[in-house]
Amino acid sequence: MTDTTHLADTTDEQLETVLAAATSAATYWADRAPHERATILTAVADALEGQASALVGVAIEETGLPEGRLTGEVKRTSVQLRMFAEELIDGTFLDVIIDRADPDFVLGPRPDLRRYQIPVGPVLVFAASNFPFAFSVAGTDTASALAAGCPVVLKAHPGHPRTSAATAAIVRDALATAGAPEGVFALITGFEAGVRALKDPRITAAGFTGSVAGGRALFDIAAARPIPIPFFGELGSVNPAVVTAGALDERAEDIATGFVASFTLGAGQFCTKPGILLVPTGSPITDRITALTQQVPAARMLTAKIAEGYHHRIEDTAAVPGVEVLVKGTASTGESGVPEVSPTLLRTTAEHLGAHADTLLEESFGPAAIIAEYGTEDEVHRVLGRVDGTLTVTVHTRTEPTPEEQNELRRITRIAATRAGRLVFNGWPTGVAVTSAQHHGGPYPATTAVAHTSVGTTAIRRFLRPVTYQDAPEALIPAPVQDRNPLQVPQAVNAAGESANWGRSHS
Amino acid sequence: MTDTTHLADTTDEQLETVLAAATSAATYWADRAPHERATILTAVADALEGQASALVGVAIEETGLPEGRLTGEVKRTSVQLRMFAEELIDGTFLDVIIDRADPDFVLGPRPDLRRYQIPVGPVLVFAASNFPFAFSVAGTDTASALAAGCPVVLKAHPGHPRTSAATAAIVRDALATAGAPEGVFALITGFEAGVRALKDPRITAAGFTGSVAGGRALFDIAAARPIPIPFFGELGSVNPAVVTAGALDERAEDIATGFVASFTLGAGQFCTKPGILLVPTGSPITDRITALTQQVPAARMLTAKIAEGYHHRIEDTAAVPGVEVLVKGTASTGESGVPEVSPTLLRTTAEHLGAHADTLLEESFGPAAIIAEYGTEDEVHRVLGRVDGTLTVTVHTRTEPTPEEQNELRRITRIAATRAGRLVFNGWPTGVAVTSAQHHGGPYPATTAVAHTSVGTTAIRRFLRPVTYQDAPEALIPAPVQDRNPLQVPQAVNAAGESANWGRSHS
Repeated sequence: MTDTTHLADTTDEQLETVLAAATSAATYWADRAPHERATILTAVADALEGQASALVGVAIEETGLPEGRLTGEVKRTSVQLRMFAEELIDGTFLDVIIDRADPDFVLGPRPDLRRYQIPVGPVLVFAASNFPFAFSVAGTDTASALAAGCPVVLKAHPGHPRTSAATAAIVRDALATAGAPEGVFALITGFEAGVRALKDPRITAAGFTGSVAGGRALFDIAAARPIPIPFFGELGSVNPAVVTAGALDERAEDIATGFVASFTLGAGQFCTKPGILLVPTGSPITDRITALTQQVPAARMLTAKIAEGYHHRIEDTAAVPGVEVLVKGTASTGESGVPEVSPTLLRTTAEHLGAHADTLLEESFGPAAIIAEYGTEDEVHRVLGRVDGTLTVTVHTRTEPTPEEQNELRRITRIAATRAGRLVFNGWPTGVAVTSAQHHGGPYPATTAVAHTSVGTTAIRRFLRPVTYQDAPEALIPAPVQDRNPLQVPQAVNAAGESANWGRSHS
Repeated sequence: MTDTTHLADTTDEQLETVLAAATSAATYWADRAPHERATILTAVADALEGQASALVGVAIEETGLPEGRLTGEVKRTSVQLRMFAEELIDGTFLDVIIDRADPDFVLGPRPDLRRYQIPVGPVLVFAASNFPFAFSVAGTDTASALAAGCPVVLKAHPGHPRTSAATAAIVRDALATAGAPEGVFALITGFEAGVRALKDPRITAAGFTGSVAGGRALFDIAAARPIPIPFFGELGSVNPAVVTAGALDERAEDIATGFVASFTLGAGQFCTKPGILLVPTGSPITDRITALTQQVPAARMLTAKIAEGYHHRIEDTAAVPGVEVLVKGTASTGESGVPEVSPTLLRTTAEHLGAHADTLLEESFGPAAIIAEYGTEDEVHRVLGRVDGTLTVTVHTRTEPTPEEQNELRRITRIAATRAGRLVFNGWPTGVAVTSAQHHGGPYPATTAVAHTSVGTTAIRRFLRPVTYQDAPEALIPAPVQDRNPLQVPQAVNAAGESANWGRSHS
């Protein structure tokens, strides 16, 4: 029933038009005052919300995701745009630092220096498969790049072409109505066009959400350019979760239901799906999780290719010595031609996990998880030490841990912080809150840029770079760094390190 | 007379010891409270200052740089360490963002999220040739990485091995006296050891100051690792300077003397040396600059290899059609065996500069500069548009520009900001102030990481990454993000984007 018409791939000639327009729009967009960009982002959010039901309708046909999920995702997408609008008005993102001239500076007379953040230039965004709205055409990469003042060239994901086209039309219309030139936002389609755009010198940064293989290939292209550019890729993540004996004493049933809900949510197609659950050896929770997993109905996967990848991955994992299949996922082909799959649950020991880290400590995209039983805290520590960079590590502990438990937990937390961007306590990593303090990132392969997040307001920092004005005549000082502060943004004036005591010791 | 003994290259076995020690010291160093690291950095600064005259003596023998310059550089090095100590106590670098739990959040109940910056892990620093102290063993990369909480493995520059060894001994002793374990700082030597360390998975980031060719080769290695790491390289920069007719009306003599002093300072061996001076066609300043350049005495270059590179580069540039040699640099071999060179001054037109950008708009390391005459502001605009990423663009204008000049200047400033990290007005780019608002960076090839600086307190950001704690039990919340704020650091609590008006439009 689904209309499987794909958008035609962007031709070289069309891409040239897009890139030229983005380049010529860059100055216009960068020069808009932050509150003007805020108004325009808000208009885009309004437009998306106004057409939410039409968008959701297309996306249901195309992706098979439930209506509630998609409606929530459109809401999240518009909230993200509004949040960046707020951030623009707040002005913290401009990161203003002003050091006034100082004739008595310890290293000799010092000029007047005024530093703030400017947009990097046109940004290429590769949309994700698994979030047809929130990480796609008008998603977090696009919102943060537009907020930063960068034109966006959006490479649509082939998994939802009509949803992409419909969203792009709304974004373009809202921008045009607000008076923005064509080049501020454009949609391109096709693998070749994406790669060609990534190699083009007019593109100054790229964002990506997807697989390790795909993301690494694009990262390599970005790094190999004559002028390399930052590539903000969010790739793969195993998201281990640790359950202590104390936590099981307190709330084993909650943990069992929460875990099954989290790893099977959205057919396990979330970057933050908990792929490993470390539980004490012999705990009855394994049986309970098994029973709950057996009750989870089959769910449609996003694309046939993703479903195929899931099956290969499960077979590889189940074939590892010492891995026991507790629940074997089944597959049936739905009317869309895309398989519907039920969850897979495996069991092994923490020791085996470490010994076969190359296979078992790799992301399985889809509703699969491994329960790994540990005998000692040391085993947990060793497994976490073997985990590649991951978006999250989850720890389930007693709500109020005993002093002894606290010591063990500090040790686990310390190693976890070296592997992950977010430590989740007594909850589950799926359902990433969109907020200022969020960090959706982590060491490679969780991301290709460990200092950055792709969710939350600090995502804007990816598309900014500093510039310092030295002794500029008053008429040439940009608004954010003027003494009269017309934008009313936070300014750190002669801030840290300005005290007179550099000459003496701190001891 | 100079002792040309080189330090023996670090062996594979020695390197293994160094990397293992750095790894095991990483937790210790990361866990020090910021004020403890501040005390230790201050002790290192004290130790360097206490032994400044001995260090300067070694460096004079080894580099031939003047005593005043080297004494100033030791001072700068210790001031940098003290500045990062201040930054640690100030706590802004921790970038704390706290979003308390919110059951009524627009996208559904939201957990408690607490985000701050943690050290990335062991950092490899490649020391520079041209600053034997300030960008070498205890220089800005080392100071900022140690401040961030990262152990440092320092690859010494072969241009000043004894100075490096003497500085390293002082740093190591000061760290040991303060109780820090061995692995917090180590010196390694030899090209092979540097490359091997860069490829080692235990190294999590690298800093570099040097040539485009060398820096790019190392950047490529860092990017090609199975787990790629950030490579903060400061490579090459042409630092164009524009002089308006109004500026010449006001102070032609000052500009002529200032320019000659700047491009010949330290035998032109500064990253910020102004390599191009754009002046109005037919201005008499060219004759004046020529005369002043002829009076500059020969100066020793840092190494025979650098002097050789300078000569090749001058020959290539002078051979470009339309380039006239105004002053031909001479060379004589000093007693150290290193050539002493006098400055070179070339002349061409802005049009030629653009037409032969590949040769003429490339950095010449050494006391060489090109005067390029322009007929119209458009020509200036076009030249700046052709310049690769550069640390600085300098503009000399009337101190109080007329409204008409202001419009022209805004256009020049706009294009300059797309090419440079710092815009210098009515001054010269050499003599980089060490301060919070400094930005010593810029688009490639000025640096390999456009968002970062290698001078000033924000250099610490290169070696930090965020981590967010979600719903952590109180006993496990790290000090910087605790509600009682024991470190007394700035905390952004429920900061930007928390207003209730996401539901309505900003227009």
